[in-house]
Amino acid sequence: MSATGEAFTLAELAARFALELHGDGRVRVDGVATLAGATASQVGFLANPRYRSELATTQAAAVILRAADATHFPRAALLAQDPYVAYAKVAGLFERRPACAPGIHPSAVIAADAHIASGVAIGAFCVVESGARIDEGALLGPYCHVGADCHVGAQTRLVARVTLVARVRLGKRTLVHPGAVLGADGFGLAFDRDRWIKVPQLGGVVVGDDCEIGANTTIDRGALEDTVLEDDVRLDNQIQIAHNVRIGAHTAMAGCSAVAGSARIGRYCLIGGGAGILGHLEICDKVTITSMALVTHSIATPGEYSSGTPIQDNRTWRRNAARFKHLDELHRRVTALEKDTKP
Amino acid sequence: MSATGEAFTLAELAARFALELHGDGRVRVDGVATLAGATASQVGFLANPRYRSELATTQAAAVILRAADATHFPRAALLAQDPYVAYAKVAGLFERRPACAPGIHPSAVIAADAHIASGVAIGAFCVVESGARIDEGALLGPYCHVGADCHVGAQTRLVARVTLVARVRLGKRTLVHPGAVLGADGFGLAFDRDRWIKVPQLGGVVVGDDCEIGANTTIDRGALEDTVLEDDVRLDNQIQIAHNVRIGAHTAMAGCSAVAGSARIGRYCLIGGGAGILGHLEICDKVTITSMALVTHSIATPGEYSSGTPIQDNRTWRRNAARFKHLDELHRRVTALEKDTKP
Amino acid sequence: MSATGEAFTLAELAARFALELHGDGRVRVDGVATLAGATASQVGFLANPRYRSELATTQAAAVILRAADATHFPRAALLAQDPYVAYAKVAGLFERRPACAPGIHPSAVIAADAHIASGVAIGAFCVVESGARIDEGALLGPYCHVGADCHVGAQTRLVARVTLVARVRLGKRTLVHPGAVLGADGFGLAFDRDRWIKVPQLGGVVVGDDCEIGANTTIDRGALEDTVLEDDVRLDNQIQIAHNVRIGAHTAMAGCSAVAGSARIGRYCLIGGGAGILGHLEICDKVTITSMALVTHSIATPGEYSSGTPIQDNRTWRRNAARFKHLDELHRRVTALEKDTKP
Repeated sequence: MSATGEAFTLAELAARFALELHGDGRVRVDGVATLAGATASQVGFLANPRYRSELATTQAAAVILRAADATHFPRAALLAQDPYVAYAKVAGLFERRPACAPGIHPSAVIAADAHIASGVAIGAFCVVESGARIDEGALLGPYCHVGADCHVGAQTRLVARVTLVARVRLGKRTLVHPGAVLGADGFGLAFDRDRWIKVPQLGGVVVGDDCEIGANTTIDRGALEDTVLEDDVRLDNQIQIAHNVRIGAHTAMAGCSAVAGSARIGRYCLIGGGAGILGHLEICDKVTITSMALVTHSIATPGEYSSGTPIQDNRTWRRNAARFKHLDELHRRVTALEKDTKP
Repeated sequence: MSATGEAFTLAELAARFALELHGDGRVRVDGVATLAGATASQVGFLANPRYRSELATTQAAAVILRAADATHFPRAALLAQDPYVAYAKVAGLFERRPACAPGIHPSAVIAADAHIASGVAIGAFCVVESGARIDEGALLGPYCHVGADCHVGAQTRLVARVTLVARVRLGKRTLVHPGAVLGADGFGLAFDRDRWIKVPQLGGVVVGDDCEIGANTTIDRGALEDTVLEDDVRLDNQIQIAHNVRIGAHTAMAGCSAVAGSARIGRYCLIGGGAGILGHLEICDKVTITSMALVTHSIATPGEYSSGTPIQDNRTWRRNAARFKHLDELHRRVTALEKDTKP
Repeated sequence: MSATGEAFTLAELAARFALELHGDGRVRVDGVATLAGATASQVGFLANPRYRSELATTQAAAVILRAADATHFPRAALLAQDPYVAYAKVAGLFERRPACAPGIHPSAVIAADAHIASGVAIGAFCVVESGARIDEGALLGPYCHVGADCHVGAQTRLVARVTLVARVRLGKRTLVHPGAVLGADGFGLAFDRDRWIKVPQLGGVVVGDDCEIGANTTIDRGALEDTVLEDDVRLDNQIQIAHNVRIGAHTAMAGCSAVAGSARIGRYCLIGGGAGILGHLEICDKVTITSMALVTHSIATPGEYSSGTPIQDNRTWRRNAARFKHLDELHRRVTALEKDTKP
């Protein structure tokens, strides 16, 4: 992948990212690739041991790997304690970002009393409402909607078509992908005799620095207090964060996971794809929830948690699932047998 | 939370919402809050008994609560049979809605033969297509797209970026949040020898009065007849309603739930977050489905229904899940044991 | 449903779609409907045997059905080997598509170096960025965003509000519904000591011919290589396709399903609603996954696969679910009993 046309010598890369050079530092690379996919002008990487055998056949000009893997590697290499992290940094050099010169597209609709700092880029068809504030170096791609009194921190990028409805404050260097909706009404209803009445949602959304929010993800604003994402929270696509949730710093959530109202998730948690967390629960730091598990009670001990049943061919599964419907009865039958057989 | 700058005496609130006044009616409040978060100028509320102990320490000027909870409460209060409902009504006084003067933003693109009633507000970059009708007092925030022949009822609000694709009719006082897509093609496919052909989706979507439709929720239009939401249906974010579904009045569905084609859900149902309902099923009135349950057959008896397994630490779960794969066999072994031991 | 005002004789329909005429070919129909809903000017269809009894009472002018079902049917009919496929084709005649004359709406923002072929229709508020290419007869409804260097194939339709972020190539005759986001960053993170760093997403998205992509569905671009949908892949609404996934031709996925990074799905697969497929797995051709199942290992044998437990009333379910937590122990107890009883 040679996306920018730029090239770097291994010596330059070693110096820039504090990697140890192995072999000829004059080797030039113009892109990054997998071991299997690399061409002779690219640098590959070996992070996952199961690809180790590909070292023998890769066409890569050089490879980023652990020192231990380099001993028998005859070509140039960059040695890293964590080759995946090193690869991520090197790959950043070859990323081509759409050019976005500072300035406001003439089609954008900006309220007279919005505060737009210098160096901000605002794309076509953006709407920035009254009292909103956009800090230095922020970037709004096309169709971004910054509602009244919302705040976009410095260097934060709204890729395109991002909606900040009301009372949303984003920190610095945060990245929000298209279709994300932050600050919509939380789902607050009270049942009044025979029909629902709406509970006003008077809080906001606060997102810290260095967060990422995926495409079509939704984060509702709080009912009374704010919905909060601390720094470096990473949300994938199509995640639903209900009102008054709090997510601790450095927690990452995979696609389609969801958190119900007022739940609190700790720091350094990993929430698997499609997992659900019920409302008003507390999950401590360093908890991993596996994909499509449902958390129904608070978790106070770090570790990995799961629910569900394994996938099986449908015929076998049907038989087992039918027995699950009578599992309590089966348990009682076993207990009865034990009484019968143990005198 | 004092969002509007307005203040009310307790006597005013009691009169307005038919609440019983306890203590000094001259006490003024300028916002609502939780018991723990209230300042000395706010009114708190006690709806959930587990917060009762906070009555002793709250800074609130007054509290909305049940008469039974007021007996030992030394300060001003508003007595309500359902304090959560009363709180919802009081909170509505302190909600600040973005000002939206009637009129059509100059950037909006409105078909010459669209019918726009008086008192309608249409925001920046809206598109209203041929034959569409927008009734009195309706509000379209920025980027709303009202497709050909769609109908938006009186006082209905499309917050922003709502898409009504085709043949969508919304009732009165309905609220639709950003990113919602109503009236897209249902997922109709017929398998023709070795490839799919598309089944035309000739129906529409009909949404009743007083409904709410969450951010990024999708409601497909019917294949032949309409997809229908009756009055006062409340949908949270990221819900998927397939073609020809019918949802009865006063039913509420939590985030990320989904209903497959032609299913019929009764009135006053509660569908938990992430729950799924298969196609062509019928669910009677007053059914509750718990979060992430999958409904695979029709339900004819009101009540609460669930599926899934409890969350456990991953190691324990793995052991149990492995046994699930052989549950039918285990059942047979127990039956055999019973034969052996019972002569 | 008479959506277009046009009418056709049965003889015309029989000739056009190679169906066998049964009875009077001069009968005219102006729409399609279910047997139960048809009026005397419409053609009904019988595809599902459980509606066979409705043949006796339908008001339809004629019916599309299998030859075997026609023997006792006294009125006009069109005989088809697969009546659902025939119905789909006939229904297409009565579908009214919004008129979209070729041309570029004056509000659209088109980069000077974008390549727009002849016969392309570009709606209000579209943005087409530098280097993008739109082929003959493609249609972009309002608010479509074609990012830099993206490619929209001939006759492809982006209904409205579709986002192609970067490096997205769509084939011919593909249909994309509102709110879909293609080509957003894959969710690539590397953990660097105490915080996340972003892994650049340098790949693209390649979608084949004759695909359909549902409302609010997201397809991320690849990390190094491309995310790929082969020809005739059909995705319903709110589906999440992570980076570097490959989906084989003719595979259909129902709403809210999700595929994690680098998984490969074969051809002619059917993925049920809400189902999940973990990353890096391989699923062979002709696999069916039932709704809300989670695929946790590769599948090498065609067939139907499931996970989960059946829905039950909550009280019964709770008892069974509690026993699941000790299923391994129960298994051991049974094994012990067998040792005790079998000498």
